Amino acid sequence: MKKYVYFFGEGDKSMKETLGGKGANLSEMTKIGIPVPPGFTISAEVCDYFYKHDKRYPDELKKQIDENLAKLEAKMGAKLGDSENPLLVSVRSGAAISMPGMMDTVLNLGLNDESVQGLIKKTGNERFTWDAYRRFINMFGDVVMGVDHHHFEEQLDSVKKTKGVEYDTDLDAGDLKKVVELYKEVVRKHTGKLFPSDPREQLQMAIDAVFGSWNNPRAISYRRINEIKGLLGTAVNVQTMVFGNMGDSSGTGVFFTRDPSTGENKFYGEFLINAQGEDVVAGIRTPQPITELKKIQPENYNKLIEIYKKCEKHYKDMQDMEFTIQEAKLYILQTRNGKRTAAAAVRIAVEMVAEGLIDKKTAVLRVEPNQLDQLLHKQLDPVAKKEAEVIAKGLPASPGAAVGEVVFDAHTAFNWAQEGKKVILVRIETSPEDIEGMNAAQGILTARGGMTSHAAVVARGMGKCCVAGCGDISISYKEKQFSIGNLIIKEGDYITLDGGTGELFKGKIPTVDPELSGNFGILMEWADSFRKIGVRANADIPRDAKVAVKFGAEGIGLCRTEHMFFEGERIKHMRKMILAETVESRKAALDKLLPYQKSDFKGLFEAMGEYPVIIRLLDPPLHEFLPHKEDEIKEISIETGVSVQKIKEKIASLHEFNPMLGHRGCRLGIAYPEITEMQARAIVEGAYEVAKKTGKKVKAKIMIPLVGKVGELSHQKKIVEKVIEEAKGKYDKELPFSIGTMIEVPRGALTADEVAKEAEFFSFGTNDLTQMTCGFSRDDAGKFLKQYVELGIYEKDPFQAIDQTGVGEMMKIAIKKGRKTRPDLEIGICGEHGGEPSSVEFCHRIGLNYVSCSPYRVPIARLAAAHAALKEE
Amino acid sequence: MKKYVYFFGEGDKSMKETLGGKGANLSEMTKIGIPVPPGFTISAEVCDYFYKHDKRYPDELKKQIDENLAKLEAKMGAKLGDSENPLLVSVRSGAAISMPGMMDTVLNLGLNDESVQGLIKKTGNERFTWDAYRRFINMFGDVVMGVDHHHFEEQLDSVKKTKGVEYDTDLDAGDLKKVVELYKEVVRKHTGKLFPSDPREQLQMAIDAVFGSWNNPRAISYRRINEIKGLLGTAVNVQTMVFGNMGDSSGTGVFFTRDPSTGENKFYGEFLINAQGEDVVAGIRTPQPITELKKIQPENYNKLIEIYKKCEKHYKDMQDMEFTIQEAKLYILQTRNGKRTAAAAVRIAVEMVAEGLIDKKTAVLRVEPNQLDQLLHKQLDPVAKKEAEVIAKGLPASPGAAVGEVVFDAHTAFNWAQEGKKVILVRIETSPEDIEGMNAAQGILTARGGMTSHAAVVARGMGKCCVAGCGDISISYKEKQFSIGNLIIKEGDYITLDGGTGELFKGKIPTVDPELSGNFGILMEWADSFRKIGVRANADIPRDAKVAVKFGAEGIGLCRTEHMFFEGERIKHMRKMILAETVESRKAALDKLLPYQKSDFKGLFEAMGEYPVIIRLLDPPLHEFLPHKEDEIKEISIETGVSVQKIKEKIASLHEFNPMLGHRGCRLGIAYPEITEMQARAIVEGAYEVAKKTGKKVKAKIMIPLVGKVGELSHQKKIVEKVIEEAKGKYDKELPFSIGTMIEVPRGALTADEVAKEAEFFSFGTNDLTQMTCGFSRDDAGKFLKQYVELGIYEKDPFQAIDQTGVGEMMKIAIKKGRKTRPDLEIGICGEHGGEPSSVEFCHRIGLNYVSCSPYRVPIARLAAAHAALKEE
Repeated sequence: MKKYVYFFGEGDKSMKETLGGKGANLSEMTKIGIPVPPGFTISAEVCDYFYKHDKRYPDELKKQIDENLAKLEAKMGAKLGDSENPLLVSVRSGAAISMPGMMDTVLNLGLNDESVQGLIKKTGNERFTWDAYRRFINMFGDVVMGVDHHHFEEQLDSVKKTKGVEYDTDLDAGDLKKVVELYKEVVRKHTGKLFPSDPREQLQMAIDAVFGSWNNPRAISYRRINEIKGLLGTAVNVQTMVFGNMGDSSGTGVFFTRDPSTGENKFYGEFLINAQGEDVVAGIRTPQPITELKKIQPENYNKLIEIYKKCEKHYKDMQDMEFTIQEAKLYILQTRNGKRTAAAAVRIAVEMVAEGLIDKKTAVLRVEPNQLDQLLHKQLDPVAKKEAEVIAKGLPASPGAAVGEVVFDAHTAFNWAQEGKKVILVRIETSPEDIEGMNAAQGILTARGGMTSHAAVVARGMGKCCVAGCGDISISYKEKQFSIGNLIIKEGDYITLDGGTGELFKGKIPTVDPELSGNFGILMEWADSFRKIGVRANADIPRDAKVAVKFGAEGIGLCRTEHMFFEGERIKHMRKMILAETVESRKAALDKLLPYQKSDFKGLFEAMGEYPVIIRLLDPPLHEFLPHKEDEIKEISIETGVSVQKIKEKIASLHEFNPMLGHRGCRLGIAYPEITEMQARAIVEGAYEVAKKTGKKVKAKIMIPLVGKVGELSHQKKIVEKVIEEAKGKYDKELPFSIGTMIEVPRGALTADEVAKEAEFFSFGTNDLTQMTCGFSRDDAGKFLKQYVELGIYEKDPFQAIDQTGVGEMMKIAIKKGRKTRPDLEIGICGEHGGEPSSVEFCHRIGLNYVSCSPYRVPIARLAAAHAALKEE
Repeated sequence: MKKYVYFFGEGDKSMKETLGGKGANLSEMTKIGIPVPPGFTISAEVCDYFYKHDKRYPDELKKQIDENLAKLEAKMGAKLGDSENPLLVSVRSGAAISMPGMMDTVLNLGLNDESVQGLIKKTGNERFTWDAYRRFINMFGDVVMGVDHHHFEEQLDSVKKTKGVEYDTDLDAGDLKKVVELYKEVVRKHTGKLFPSDPREQLQMAIDAVFGSWNNPRAISYRRINEIKGLLGTAVNVQTMVFGNMGDSSGTGVFFTRDPSTGENKFYGEFLINAQGEDVVAGIRTPQPITELKKIQPENYNKLIEIYKKCEKHYKDMQDMEFTIQEAKLYILQTRNGKRTAAAAVRIAVEMVAEGLIDKKTAVLRVEPNQLDQLLHKQLDPVAKKEAEVIAKGLPASPGAAVGEVVFDAHTAFNWAQEGKKVILVRIETSPEDIEGMNAAQGILTARGGMTSHAAVVARGMGKCCVAGCGDISISYKEKQFSIGNLIIKEGDYITLDGGTGELFKGKIPTVDPELSGNFGILMEWADSFRKIGVRANADIPRDAKVAVKFGAEGIGLCRTEHMFFEGERIKHMRKMILAETVESRKAALDKLLPYQKSDFKGLFEAMGEYPVIIRLLDPPLHEFLPHKEDEIKEISIETGVSVQKIKEKIASLHEFNPMLGHRGCRLGIAYPEITEMQARAIVEGAYEVAKKTGKKVKAKIMIPLVGKVGELSHQKKIVEKVIEEAKGKYDKELPFSIGTMIEVPRGALTADEVAKEAEFFSFGTNDLTQMTCGFSRDDAGKFLKQYVELGIYEKDPFQAIDQTGVGEMMKIAIKKGRKTRPDLEIGICGEHGGEPSSVEFCHRIGLNYVSCSPYRVPIARLAAAHAALKEE
């Protein structure tokens, strides 16, 4: 005879598919001797049979349920429906994959007019018992018999009204007894049937309901959205109810096997005497620390310690457990892996290896890469933060915490910071002209823009706290203030930002510095030993490069040269270059820029030693370097000697309807080959000079942006090669320069076989590739992408995690075609996605050589890369 | 012994590869008995050998040249260098593929101090002879001996100066004799060698030079740019010189075997007595009509008629021929297929089939699809146009001619047209708000924008003449005038546009109407019988649909519903809809739009009978429907009752950085499902009502734009399907609705297998697909794409002809994946490319079911489709 029903302990955790997650775990705990309230599980195979046979059950089922019920009654010394010692059970769903709240549950099953008397005798608590009974009728009536909850609610309200009270707790046993009768009548009225008094019938009906709920519309759409496929169905768990509120020898509590905040190996939890689980959660009564239990019930306390050690050893992870003591008898209701802070995760993982509980691979897999973000930035003091009031909320655009005086322009930010003040730059949105101010500020707050807005991208690159797109605030530059409703914050007022949550606070909140403890270093070392792909950083300036190296970057995957054109004098020459009307005057301006660029590159090369440094040539449209305000234009006119009229004409002629798809990237270098030449010269000469000074073999890699057709690359490559050739003669050693391209235009990916004929390396610019592949402007898509994710059209924002089926498909084509032409082609990624764990895993799977991300995400990428490699094993 | 030299007549036209195009043709003509000046061809295999053997010749070559030269001398009764009857020859290059002007030519070879006397005796014309001699030295010195032309020119100038004359023609025989001596000295001075007097040596040196010129830099880059590959090299043609200027029994002329303007089957040409070919071309003397020759040299006239008939019969095409009569002896110098107007091409092709000269397939292939454009639009009277002065030139954005009074805004255009005036709308650039004015105007002139600017696209759709991007004109809306330099054209002044050339004229020029003659119809019928893919039209309004049917469209491939929202009252409701703050008020505005839309669709369905009509749901971003000028905003505020402030806020909130990649297409329908619902309802109910009225099975196909992920389509499809379901109940018959999508986002193409699960048809929107695949904003790329084409990075502007290796690759992926899911998936194209011949051919090759283009390009697409099918055979 096929076995359909398993008494707890007959199965184990390997049987999730048939017993469901919950059932398998209850069996497992029982098996290893944890005192779980006894019960049995009806296999998910029954659910499968049920739907394949027109909602009928296998013939053997009834008998097996009866046998297990008898076994349960014998074990508990109690009987379902008994008027002396009644057994109450819960009936719960539980599939192989958790679908919280999607299917049905019935508690307190077994109550009827007889057993309610038995329960009163047993508990001595009439009110509790009648309350349990009326709750049972409500729940059963709703879930099993289909009577809408509000019908019951109306009756309860009428009783309260009659009595003139407001809360349920004001009703006494007598009132609740009346409610029971009214509830029974509700059921009769809406179903035409009497509320079933036979507990065995109650049980069967509840089982039917749970199996039936497998295919309710809610559950079906949950499975569709979460792509849950191939399950047999749900199992049904029938378990003895236990009560922690049966007097002073009863109680309930929750605890962790280690400190979930710090990871310290200690017993950590709290409990309440004479209470139910929800009382602990509800926070009406203040629970006592778990150590207090030692005084009250030393035996159970010792048992708990024994149990938790056993569980941790068995499950090999920190456990989050719930227990109930019913009249001095201890039951464990649940054990599961406990949630923890990043610091705790790292400490627990490393210490468990030392304790021999887990191996290094497991330890590495135990820490979620994204969690590390917490460890790498300054944080608000958690205690002080609890007290503080959130005045507005924006997007958590760049993690960390920032406290400072509000300023509204980059200039003031810079000046105040020079004076030693800590400032927060508040802008409607930022532009490349704000870079210096952003750099000087503690943090950045913008009213507009998404997770990939200019402010967000630059701030993450700088490892600086940023709250973006905070639509609650209304900024007036003129009055130098912003408002949130009636609250006005003026220039010089202190505010505090939490870049990890997007929260904005008034005043100063203390912060705590990140501590890259020894455990962190150990874990990262292990991660590095497992990962297969390289991790580089996106860094534009020597300071960032140094941070990147500190965080373990193995090179620079992207240096954006345009950021170099904004500081100080440079922007003047850049503007002169743009406003030049002849090649000669353009060259003259470029000659002025050359020394700046060269010195920047030298700084990078010095920081990176013999690690590769990929430098991308000028990418953004030229209009980004010109001002748009009248007074700024006048200023520039004076500086450059070009008439205001001419400057305005130039600005107008550079205006584009879709700058994203406009005159930028290599298109600039093709229109103005002298820009490419100057940049190439700065790189090549800088590399030689550093090599000479340090004796190191500098590895400069020159990257041409926005290539869609191989001819663009050939054009630019010729210019760069000429510069390299010229330099070779000037210096006595040879350096390994290479020339490659961004793959960020779909056409470039599609024709990667052609492009690879010229390109010595590829780097996926997945920001732009996403924009063009999906047809989303990063600056504009925020407003509808949110809805897209809500509707489930996209699972995730494709600018945050690589859209694997779309953009990822494009990448695969490019890799396949590129390596067909050049089998050893080095391919990496330097878009924002390079530091996002699911994207890193994808990059590993499709065979990239490295990922590159902002310096502050390098450890995350390293860990994610290790996860990817370990998951593949 | 390998044969390297072929006497004319020994080869034939099949031997292009070895004899070159010219040599093969000269042999062919000789062979069929055309009196070609005799000569011989040295095979291109010699050229191949030459470069493979360090510029040496095969041993057998000299002997073969000598033999053929002897044969030539015998045939002509003249000898190279002879002092009594000298033979003069030309030495010309000629490869299998014509490379005009890239390689070297030497004329009058054989002259030296002896033969010059012989030529004087023979011609009795001393001046002519010395002139020929000095020209020969100049040409030979330059081409063969490398003496720069200007050295010769200096000497000639000095002689003229000494004599005090201005023109070469003022020099007499004595002067020219002196020039010959000076030229010889130039050669000696610059080469250190005497000018070669041995004609056999002259010949060998000229042959060396021609073979040498195969690899001159000019020829190499010409072959690279034109992708000419795999040729052996050039052949060398040595041919007897003949002279039409040897007195009154000599002459020269050119003629066509049919009238190249009309195609009429008549002898058509002109000639000059006692003249050389260049005299005819130079236009100093006025040639006589060919029929006059009958009176002067009746025998040669009759011979010409006999020869031309023979040639036409032999080459089976209208010929363009050159002849020279040397002392009453007739020579044919060249015959080639003649260029002709579109009208002539059609008439000749159709008549030649009737004459049994060619078959229908050949006839269809004889007419270039693009040529048809001339036939479908009003044209400027060619005679009157010759007299008129072009005052500016823009892009030939939409063909045809237009004459009218200048107006500067759509409103005036509409009003003046209502009054019966003919107007030309002149704008800096047009926007959707100008539609009504464009419709009312005879033609459109814009100062900005390219071939695919709004003005250009809309004008082509309307079949209306448009000159776009005319940078020469400077418009002042305020003063209601535009200027070109000092010329000022005011509102109300007449101008004339030629949309086929982009020319702009002052005043009125008479026009001629297109005549779709019987021959045109016959040819198109043949084309239709050969083509394999369907041709539909892009049409938004019933009038366009009717034109499309007249031009042979088999359905509407794209109806852009947004154009329907601008006329009259509609725009008000559209604006109310956009400004609505609740779903209810949006629905109320949409309810007002519904009857308009429905009536438009009904017009289309009535025009198209049972042909499919594909209607695209709302596509452009909503901001396009809102005004941006202060007074217009005020006006709308009054109309809609929405405050100016609110309207401005809405406009600001709709502003996008890259509207091309912004909130448009199905993204609108997803944000505002009620828009989709209204449009679907208008289509479905309209279809049912027309079906009821006409008894026809209306085929409405609903197209969702800008789908990048299948979820977007599913979302919109559900809404449309619901509307269809509801309508089914209301009407008693069933109509075959289908729901499909544009493939215009790269992601949509890449995941076409998924998209095809929902889409019942695909239509490539190659405009947007090109923008996103190549990363080019159509509105902005004009400035650099021009340079890209000049540099050869792109061969053609990808917005004009499909970029087959990039965008085409994307299309192939979509087709393959789409048909994998749904093997019978109907796939078409509705971008601007659908009417461009090379793109139509590509669409045929990759297996599309149809192309769709503007009504006025339908015949072009039909013919191009036939060409594609026939070329494949």
